[in-house]
Amino acid sequence: MSQAFDLIVIGSGPAGQKAALNAAKLGKSVALVDRQTSLGGVCIHTGTIPSKAIREAVLHLTGLNLRQVYGESYSVKQEITMQDLLYRADHVVRTETEVIRSQMRRNHVQLFFGTASFLDAHTIRIQRNEDELTDIRGEFILVAVGTEPARPANVPFTPNRVIDSTELLSLTKLPKSMTIVGGGVIGSEYACMMAAVGVKVTLVESRPKLLEFVDDELIEAMQFHLRDHGVRLRLGESVSKIELDGQDVLATLASNKTIRCETLLYCIGRQGATSCLQLSNAGLTADNRGRLKVNEMHQTEVPHIYAAGDVIGFPALAATSMEQGRLASSHMFHQYVEAPSTIYPYGIYTIPEISMVGSTEQQLTAAGTPYECGIARYREIARGQLIGDHHGLLKLLFHPQSRRLLGVHTFGTGATELIHIGQAVMAAGMPIDYFIDSVFNYPTLAECYKVAALDGINRIRVTSDTTAELKAAA
Amino acid sequence: MSQAFDLIVIGSGPAGQKAALNAAKLGKSVALVDRQTSLGGVCIHTGTIPSKAIREAVLHLTGLNLRQVYGESYSVKQEITMQDLLYRADHVVRTETEVIRSQMRRNHVQLFFGTASFLDAHTIRIQRNEDELTDIRGEFILVAVGTEPARPANVPFTPNRVIDSTELLSLTKLPKSMTIVGGGVIGSEYACMMAAVGVKVTLVESRPKLLEFVDDELIEAMQFHLRDHGVRLRLGESVSKIELDGQDVLATLASNKTIRCETLLYCIGRQGATSCLQLSNAGLTADNRGRLKVNEMHQTEVPHIYAAGDVIGFPALAATSMEQGRLASSHMFHQYVEAPSTIYPYGIYTIPEISMVGSTEQQLTAAGTPYECGIARYREIARGQLIGDHHGLLKLLFHPQSRRLLGVHTFGTGATELIHIGQAVMAAGMPIDYFIDSVFNYPTLAECYKVAALDGINRIRVTSDTTAELKAAA
Repeated sequence: MSQAFDLIVIGSGPAGQKAALNAAKLGKSVALVDRQTSLGGVCIHTGTIPSKAIREAVLHLTGLNLRQVYGESYSVKQEITMQDLLYRADHVVRTETEVIRSQMRRNHVQLFFGTASFLDAHTIRIQRNEDELTDIRGEFILVAVGTEPARPANVPFTPNRVIDSTELLSLTKLPKSMTIVGGGVIGSEYACMMAAVGVKVTLVESRPKLLEFVDDELIEAMQFHLRDHGVRLRLGESVSKIELDGQDVLATLASNKTIRCETLLYCIGRQGATSCLQLSNAGLTADNRGRLKVNEMHQTEVPHIYAAGDVIGFPALAATSMEQGRLASSHMFHQYVEAPSTIYPYGIYTIPEISMVGSTEQQLTAAGTPYECGIARYREIARGQLIGDHHGLLKLLFHPQSRRLLGVHTFGTGATELIHIGQAVMAAGMPIDYFIDSVFNYPTLAECYKVAALDGINRIRVTSDTTAELKAAA
Repeated sequence: MSQAFDLIVIGSGPAGQKAALNAAKLGKSVALVDRQTSLGGVCIHTGTIPSKAIREAVLHLTGLNLRQVYGESYSVKQEITMQDLLYRADHVVRTETEVIRSQMRRNHVQLFFGTASFLDAHTIRIQRNEDELTDIRGEFILVAVGTEPARPANVPFTPNRVIDSTELLSLTKLPKSMTIVGGGVIGSEYACMMAAVGVKVTLVESRPKLLEFVDDELIEAMQFHLRDHGVRLRLGESVSKIELDGQDVLATLASNKTIRCETLLYCIGRQGATSCLQLSNAGLTADNRGRLKVNEMHQTEVPHIYAAGDVIGFPALAATSMEQGRLASSHMFHQYVEAPSTIYPYGIYTIPEISMVGSTEQQLTAAGTPYECGIARYREIARGQLIGDHHGLLKLLFHPQSRRLLGVHTFGTGATELIHIGQAVMAAGMPIDYFIDSVFNYPTLAECYKVAALDGINRIRVTSDTTAELKAAA
């Protein structure tokens, strides 16, 4: 007879972990299934964590952030190798995997290693190797298998030469030149890192700008920086053919331009990692990109089977996936949870970082919501001078009458941390006057909030004065 | 006839600057007086800014923060000199001075350079050099002259050997050993920096612990770290005699121990820089430490003369001084200002940083306010692993029934920035559930708020369960 659990979670990334922990803390029996080499999911092994560890190494070894202080040619290490970049990543991946394993053990979540598939709507078969099968039963099942890079048939994937973002971590050496196809989060982040260590990067994106959900002003600054660091942007262009050509890779654009490089990184599209799951045995079907559809409680069409994390699509960020996992398992076991906040922050680890919460100028304009904006530049505040970040900026969007905060957009050192101050103020519904009446530690980047709020209030004043003058003149 | 102004500000540090700017923006005529070499005050020239610039240089050049990543003996530069440490400071001081100068010019604040003194309660004499005198009249006067290190007669101050914190910036070389007398903010900050660059530091403090206004748990962590980095702490000890002895400096403690070192840094007490002001001509007197007494609107006994900043005493932090300056000049010109928030953050730039807002455990206990606490350690979260900060921690104190946030205490990388998230939540009166229901960018240090809140909530749960069990058993 197969072992039975209140909940079986398939996939141990951020969504799966939080769902399992939450159910375990409610006293439920929980099984967590993943391949042994994947505990922690894409987030820990091939995605967020390794890429952020590489980024930290890039920032440190290049001394990039210190060039405003020590001069344009400053660097901490001269010849940076792929091994230098991966050194820290290996360490962090090992530690984080261990943290998850120990957390699951402490909370009595039972771990099963192998490839999971549905036998029926309540039974999961776990295949460890050819002759080692285990079947377990679950009252509830959460599919949190994440995604994997799309690998279209017409792209000639070849180690070290034509690669996806997972394979980037197995590069044996840094190429001299790299073409990155796809200007989403992954493509943009790696473009920044590779350019920083001296790789000649060409970034191809079919839309007219990178990262289309980000505020225009920030993207403009980002694109300016990328070009300034020698990245060639090919926006509004798509790749029609990719070929191996002698030692090179040759990409042909739909516009008939060709780009020659040592390595091509293909980052268009990720698809739900559902192909081995035998979804049909549970009465489920994935869409054409392997993803599952869920309702707001994260239930699939089969009500006791839930899905969360990247496998359900946008925004596919670790932070939101955790929330989804927690929400799903709370719903299963009738635990009351606050309706999740709709104020989601976004953090993008380009160089410099980008982060945002609330609406963009474009969204407010489209919605017909009036707004005014206040900007602080890092170079205007002492902390910006101290760390040598002359390009960072923080932008507040607020309602000109109520002065309520509508959005915060940051670009620069520490942006992903800073955004959470604005997020709390938005959640509390406080006006931007809060920033003016508060004391900020000196010297901090957080002071940008005060400077930006003062800038914003002054713009309203000027506008009112002008209106008054116009009225007086009429 | 002497030129007349709505406001004369004496001293161009944070308090003076903000007072002058605020009055100027209200359309008032403003004179700002300081010595040419001091535009920006102690903050820019000998205090906050240079010490923070040195700190940044220390962190970078020693690679201190990266030793968890690259090993205990890792450093970016082998032989660190005083010039290395001051390089960035010089640059930042020049830039910040220029920023202030240009800000005053844009806002039509008239700058006067020289030593200021009162001729009468409305007239200020500015002496540039022996035969260059200017007298100006002010409807209102703000004294924002700051402080200077106390130099007791029995301390044999000698360049490079027995010095105060101002003279530290003129050290020609780093000493091999340093005794720091006084474990307040300045002494503790420099003890950390000097120890980091390999100076053998002994820190003498007459109270039983450093930084007495900081939460005990954080100070314990700080003291542990200092000792772990080789700093010898002499707590509860006072220095009775300081002598030059051959090439050494010899300090004798009241307990008859002696400490021998190359350089002694004397950091006990600062006094109001009021000695040249001829306060009596305006009908004012300073206390025995040169400080002025003010009411809550920052008026001295002479109602049209205000004082703000370090010259009025605690807390003597740049951030609070700015608020005081703004508040004083708003009051003069009847501009309505929000009662200033009582939620003041404190930022201390030790290594690691310390920051706090709200009450400490000791204050709550003394007040009889019940509280529970939740802790997150940096090493438990991904960002902590990535940056290699294994010692940082964030502690939330909250009311066990209402769950309202009562205090936040942080120790570690970015503490002075992070604190502002908690500050906003306290200002809004939100319970710690806010942190649980919010999404935080991953991986950030800000996630500590969520982890600490969950830890705190679990402690309440355990407590309630235990109570229930005890009741059931009774």
